[in-house]
Amino acid sequence: MKFRPFVRNLALLAACLAAPFSTRSDEGMWLFNNPPVEAMKSRYGFEPSPAWLEHIQKSSVRFNNGGSGSLVSADGLVFTNHHVASDCLQKLSSAQRDYLKTGFSAGGRSEEPACPDLELNVLMSIEDVTGRVNAAVPAGAGGAEAERARRAIINTIEKESLDKTGLRSDVVTLYDGGRYHLYRYKKYTDVRLVFAPEKAIAFFGGDPDNFEYPRYDLDITFFRAYENGRPAKVEHFLKWNPQGAREGELIFVSGHPGRTDRLDTVNDLEFLRDVANPLSLNVIRRREVMARAFSERSMENARRAEDELFSYQNSRKARLGMLAGLQDPSIMNRKRTEENQLREAVRKSAELQGSYGDAWDRVAAANRVQKEIYGAHYLWERPQAFNTQLFEIARDLVRMAEETRKPNAERLREYSENALPSLQQALFSEAPVYDDLEAAKLADSLGMMVEMAGAGDPLVKQVLAGKSPQERAVELIQGTRLKDVSVRKKLAAGGQAAIEASDDPMIRLARLVDPAARKLRAAMEQKVEEPKRQAYAKLAAARFAIYGTKVYPDATFTLRLSFGQAKGYVEGGRRIPWTTRMGGAYQHAAEHQNREPFQLPESWTRNKDRLDLNTPFNFVSTADIIGGNSGSPVVNRAGEVVGIIFDGNIYSLVLDFAYTEERARAVSVHSAGITEALRKIYDARQVLSELGVGK
Amino acid sequence: MKFRPFVRNLALLAACLAAPFSTRSDEGMWLFNNPPVEAMKSRYGFEPSPAWLEHIQKSSVRFNNGGSGSLVSADGLVFTNHHVASDCLQKLSSAQRDYLKTGFSAGGRSEEPACPDLELNVLMSIEDVTGRVNAAVPAGAGGAEAERARRAIINTIEKESLDKTGLRSDVVTLYDGGRYHLYRYKKYTDVRLVFAPEKAIAFFGGDPDNFEYPRYDLDITFFRAYENGRPAKVEHFLKWNPQGAREGELIFVSGHPGRTDRLDTVNDLEFLRDVANPLSLNVIRRREVMARAFSERSMENARRAEDELFSYQNSRKARLGMLAGLQDPSIMNRKRTEENQLREAVRKSAELQGSYGDAWDRVAAANRVQKEIYGAHYLWERPQAFNTQLFEIARDLVRMAEETRKPNAERLREYSENALPSLQQALFSEAPVYDDLEAAKLADSLGMMVEMAGAGDPLVKQVLAGKSPQERAVELIQGTRLKDVSVRKKLAAGGQAAIEASDDPMIRLARLVDPAARKLRAAMEQKVEEPKRQAYAKLAAARFAIYGTKVYPDATFTLRLSFGQAKGYVEGGRRIPWTTRMGGAYQHAAEHQNREPFQLPESWTRNKDRLDLNTPFNFVSTADIIGGNSGSPVVNRAGEVVGIIFDGNIYSLVLDFAYTEERARAVSVHSAGITEALRKIYDARQVLSELGVGK
Repeated sequence: MKFRPFVRNLALLAACLAAPFSTRSDEGMWLFNNPPVEAMKSRYGFEPSPAWLEHIQKSSVRFNNGGSGSLVSADGLVFTNHHVASDCLQKLSSAQRDYLKTGFSAGGRSEEPACPDLELNVLMSIEDVTGRVNAAVPAGAGGAEAERARRAIINTIEKESLDKTGLRSDVVTLYDGGRYHLYRYKKYTDVRLVFAPEKAIAFFGGDPDNFEYPRYDLDITFFRAYENGRPAKVEHFLKWNPQGAREGELIFVSGHPGRTDRLDTVNDLEFLRDVANPLSLNVIRRREVMARAFSERSMENARRAEDELFSYQNSRKARLGMLAGLQDPSIMNRKRTEENQLREAVRKSAELQGSYGDAWDRVAAANRVQKEIYGAHYLWERPQAFNTQLFEIARDLVRMAEETRKPNAERLREYSENALPSLQQALFSEAPVYDDLEAAKLADSLGMMVEMAGAGDPLVKQVLAGKSPQERAVELIQGTRLKDVSVRKKLAAGGQAAIEASDDPMIRLARLVDPAARKLRAAMEQKVEEPKRQAYAKLAAARFAIYGTKVYPDATFTLRLSFGQAKGYVEGGRRIPWTTRMGGAYQHAAEHQNREPFQLPESWTRNKDRLDLNTPFNFVSTADIIGGNSGSPVVNRAGEVVGIIFDGNIYSLVLDFAYTEERARAVSVHSAGITEALRKIYDARQVLSELGVGK
Repeated sequence: MKFRPFVRNLALLAACLAAPFSTRSDEGMWLFNNPPVEAMKSRYGFEPSPAWLEHIQKSSVRFNNGGSGSLVSADGLVFTNHHVASDCLQKLSSAQRDYLKTGFSAGGRSEEPACPDLELNVLMSIEDVTGRVNAAVPAGAGGAEAERARRAIINTIEKESLDKTGLRSDVVTLYDGGRYHLYRYKKYTDVRLVFAPEKAIAFFGGDPDNFEYPRYDLDITFFRAYENGRPAKVEHFLKWNPQGAREGELIFVSGHPGRTDRLDTVNDLEFLRDVANPLSLNVIRRREVMARAFSERSMENARRAEDELFSYQNSRKARLGMLAGLQDPSIMNRKRTEENQLREAVRKSAELQGSYGDAWDRVAAANRVQKEIYGAHYLWERPQAFNTQLFEIARDLVRMAEETRKPNAERLREYSENALPSLQQALFSEAPVYDDLEAAKLADSLGMMVEMAGAGDPLVKQVLAGKSPQERAVELIQGTRLKDVSVRKKLAAGGQAAIEASDDPMIRLARLVDPAARKLRAAMEQKVEEPKRQAYAKLAAARFAIYGTKVYPDATFTLRLSFGQAKGYVEGGRRIPWTTRMGGAYQHAAEHQNREPFQLPESWTRNKDRLDLNTPFNFVSTADIIGGNSGSPVVNRAGEVVGIIFDGNIYSLVLDFAYTEERARAVSVHSAGITEALRKIYDARQVLSELGVGK
């Protein structure tokens, strides 16, 4: 359940509002600079020290392609999920060498292959810059002026910090406008593959078992961070605990939940329910069907589209669960009640009412605008009309040329001085591009463009140039030279003149679409996002005033600390135990007659007799997680790794907007099961010894 | 590529307009009472005699679940496609006995199992009743009055004919209002299974190979029609030709093409492109994804949903092809040119212009109304909000009680005296109903209902009764007793009083929705269909006046005759031969490493050495066919079976609105390949001897 943002630029993700804090549950995705000390103390008698928190924080890793991980050795060994790594595994594979199928184990450090475009971040510090950001926005400024001023100060703060520290410096919007924090990251861009099992066991049970429990998945991969061509020497890393979590034990999860909408206004939730989620689900379904049809034509097609297809399936299941929650009248009624309580509390105080009372209506007004432009923005700016990395590359080249001519403060966020290196890391990736897959994707999305914008739309007509979506897609993909990284680099180096001179059809297409796309982006930022930011700042202030400051912000793909217990649950009257055992994998395969995706890899059938089949394999806990937390270390009080988050159960799918402790569970691989598999199935002695686990 | 009508009631299918006839191609789906004699004569030197036509007509069979077939022995042996039969095969199967997997071969006539609800029709006569129908509609009547009058006279004509002849008597609307013909059918409702191969070879290549060529599919099944508990003795049946079609030979196809839109006005095509097809494709995709997710959970789930999933995949591929055509500017421009030519010709004659000149604008006006009500009509009347047979059963019971209290002339078409027996045949089917599958389908469609109609819609709220779509679906499916056929029969016998007294939740739901649904149906019939019928009657008259009467009407799932040549084509510069050979099946399997859906059944691998691998297996022809033609016999000049239609190639998908002879091809199983397989793989001596093929 990796977090795969549809919106590529993380800075654009809508963030949300904090939930009233309750010490009666394990709820919360907490900031490391505002941890739930009281709750942990009162519920579990545990009080984290500043050193403990710093150690966990600096051992945690963000995977910028949408997941989490942790440092687990002094030599930069990084531990994450296989399904977070699969993007890299796919890019390192070819028709002759399929690491998703065979798994991978480096014979030694010299044999660790580098991922083409992976960036890892480790959070080094947090600084509150709310005052400075808000002071830069003139009081009473309109949406356009306010948005420009806010963007300028944020770009400036980031650049100053980057120049001063050399660290990636992101100003993060929390409480969707209530706070602005400057996050400084140590960045690793040379990341190499150390060990991955076969996908058949990493994702055993496939799509049918995804978001389900009980489970039997070895969803792990080890990478190594390099610096200057050598394994990174790190001060903070987590100690491996080969016994793993025990039932009832207090555990912590440190990771990067991608997005929640827990304290969205009801109007915002309705927008998700009525507009955003139905559209994105229809698009995900059509792409899933397209990718599967492509895959089924040949084995090599299946290999090429494998990670893409997984991504659609994973998103579809996650969003279906979210939408089901939004369509459940009982859940929406609860949300309405909570909102009315807060509004009532505000109304009772003349001061609060005067300052914050109009916030809800302002959100609703912004959504009325959003409804008008959402579809067009989705097509042209996000830009879902062009579902191919080659268009994204073309657009980045076109925009980079234009934006980098402007002063840093005026640039679109993703082309600011601070953001540019990460963008270029992706732009100049040597990952393979498959013409046939890209053409199938683009043809489908051009068809969707005709459906959504209408065949008579002037821009649609220009995009198609008199051809059918299918024909035009093939022409564009076959015609573009952007598959060659040296061509991209040359265009980037040539700046605006090179872009204007280019006759590459994809560059021309990106230029054709850009004026309309930029207009839509400006409208979205100025008329929807900035007004909402201001309204949610009021809502946050109202909450702080009424509920106090022990409130956590909605998830924003930044580092958070969750806590909970390893604990089973009851489903349909039946007790679901807290853990599964390795022997269960064999039974589960047999129940499905060993047919895909329930076919265990040969390494597992061959080594069955060597295993202690009673070893815990996967386990559930009450920790509050969501997509993006995939790969997060699960640690005990001593800060040792006792497992790794890789999924949530089916009841966790509503965690996007409401935490429930009754049946919603995070699903982890147990470190005892991992140790047993590394030792007896994979004979991965080097990894084990680096983890400090001898014979 | 069986024709699976989304609209259950065939009488409701929108029909269309005739294409200008051309003797320069093999175009046309011809009426048996207006065959293309000149074209056949001039192109192929063949002139069919009335006796030849009558023999072919009366040997042709319509499968009322959406396909075609033929009588091939004096004892009522019926020959069709496996994928037309799969509905019955699915219904006859259980967890212990899976005929789709194993195939079926009756040991003798006593071992032929009866299909639960299959109805076959053989066309006995055609009578033109246009004058009588139009005379009953008062000149200048408004949509509502005209629609009622037309429905009354059609119901009356059918009832009179039924009473007089005892034959099923359908008034068929041709040229979408240009002509009304009374079709009288001999009806078989006791249909039993004789022989079916394994689905693995019948649908070898599965969804990836569907609508593709070259192909290697044994897509055949034999049934037997029974009368009074005995094999039907038939006068007309087709002789089997074990040599089969030869390259270049003139062949004929007699079958039931479901729907074409060849001479829709451009405005109607735009409606298909912009509204109808995108919606239905999104719905098909979501159901395909839902059915596949259901299937993948267990082997038994996969068996239960198998035919359902195939149906979605098949529709998706067909409609994607259609939509791709509609989105192709070059095709739409051609359509526009054709329309302008006709309009110009009408405009040149004051008389034609006065009588017919407003037809195009009238169609456009009807579509403006249609656009307003299409979504609601789709949800509540078609009724796609409730994707479960149990709702359809409930609604039929509710409406039958109400409609049968009215005089025949006033009833909704499907509850008229003539239509009722067929409706009851389906209503009282003993086919299995699986709670889990029905609940999954209903939950998905209720979710779609919320998305389309909005969570705040009063009817939506009443339907959900405060529950989530998922919860409500489970409650309805588990609560209804309509799974028991005796309950249905009791409710049907009890009439309106029994319906009103029933506390069955599905009956209550159907009653809740019915007033709104009926209102939408009336609006669609009175404000869209009747005005279009009148407008298309004008267009038809204009065409007859300008192009002459040698014009074929669009397909309406009634019997048509097509002709053409067994002939290959050129694709990307490569010659695609007219036929494949049986040995090719083994090569094709090997190329895909024998993985599903490219895994040959054991019977084929075991008997490979016995086969003449050079025997023709599948072949292509220029005959003009479309969905619904599946199972149509391919006959030679002597009227002998030389093959059976089962698919069209990828270029045939635009045949819905334009015939092209260049690359569009019908795909058939060759009778030599069938004979070889029956003899050497299945040792089906009884079938072979009944076909007159000895050792």
